Amino acid sequence: MTSPDVGRYEQHTAPAGTDPELVRTAAGLVDMMLSAWSEPEQERRRAVLDSCCVPEVSYVNLLAEATGTAAVAELLGRLTAQFPGVRPVRSSALDFHHRYARFEWVIQNEAGQPLLQGLDVIVLSEEHDRIASVITFFGAVNRTATYTYGVPAYGAP
Amino acid sequence: MTSPDVGRYEQHTAPAGTDPELVRTAAGLVDMMLSAWSEPEQERRRAVLDSCCVPEVSYVNLLAEATGTAAVAELLGRLTAQFPGVRPVRSSALDFHHRYARFEWVIQNEAGQPLLQGLDVIVLSEEHDRIASVITFFGAVNRTATYTYGVPAYGAP
Repeated sequence: MTSPDVGRYEQHTAPAGTDPELVRTAAGLVDMMLSAWSEPEQERRRAVLDSCCVPEVSYVNLLAEATGTAAVAELLGRLTAQFPGVRPVRSSALDFHHRYARFEWVIQNEAGQPLLQGLDVIVLSEEHDRIASVITFFGAVNRTATYTYGVPAYGAP
Repeated sequence: MTSPDVGRYEQHTAPAGTDPELVRTAAGLVDMMLSAWSEPEQERRRAVLDSCCVPEVSYVNLLAEATGTAAVAELLGRLTAQFPGVRPVRSSALDFHHRYARFEWVIQNEAGQPLLQGLDVIVLSEEHDRIASVITFFGAVNRTATYTYGVPAYGAP
């Protein structure tokens, strides 16, 4: 779809997020956040998160959630302690607009073998200078069902 | 990754979102929301949105954003007025946990031909009975760049 006339809605002459500087900033924040997984010490993990996230950052995946850089750092520590050497690697470009970005990642073991893939959506702070929220989805999107006008012909909802 | 010991963090004996009833409810809300695109009249579009969204629902895509069912209904009307007969069709199952779900969609013309694909993440209300927020991304995730430990070897950020 080409740029619609959205009238009195907030409209961008250039779509938000096509500002290369802003996309690079968001990508840098994401990669800093992911690097926290590789910090074995709680205080260093938290310091990394403090450098790229708001203090009250929220993190949620299928299995757990945490709020605040200290709690998120502790959660990452517990997750990685069970799987030494694993780390997430960003595997796509950042698709960014307004305060939102999506990207895919792969959790690899020390040998670089993929263990789990997924997609994160992050919400930036209003100032666009910190990550405010991370919403994580495990695995690929399930396209195995067939939908007809939104109604599944069979299979999953 | 199997279910980790996340200690004092909120942990679910069964991961949130594996409750089939909750997933079906979320899928029904999503499909109702998508069906609003096909309502040619503003008041009917708004009534559909009121049936599945909180009054102050927020909707944002690359090109526009709106807050509140009346404003979202008007935005959808303006978008579809330029492309008569188009409508979004959900093209994946819902991947749902906590208050969050992702799914893919395809915007089709009247002949059912795909015009645009994308991915939405929705946030449900705390009561899980309405959609509180819709974050839309156009197109597929960009995997054309090669990333090494989160650092792009070339190409997009």
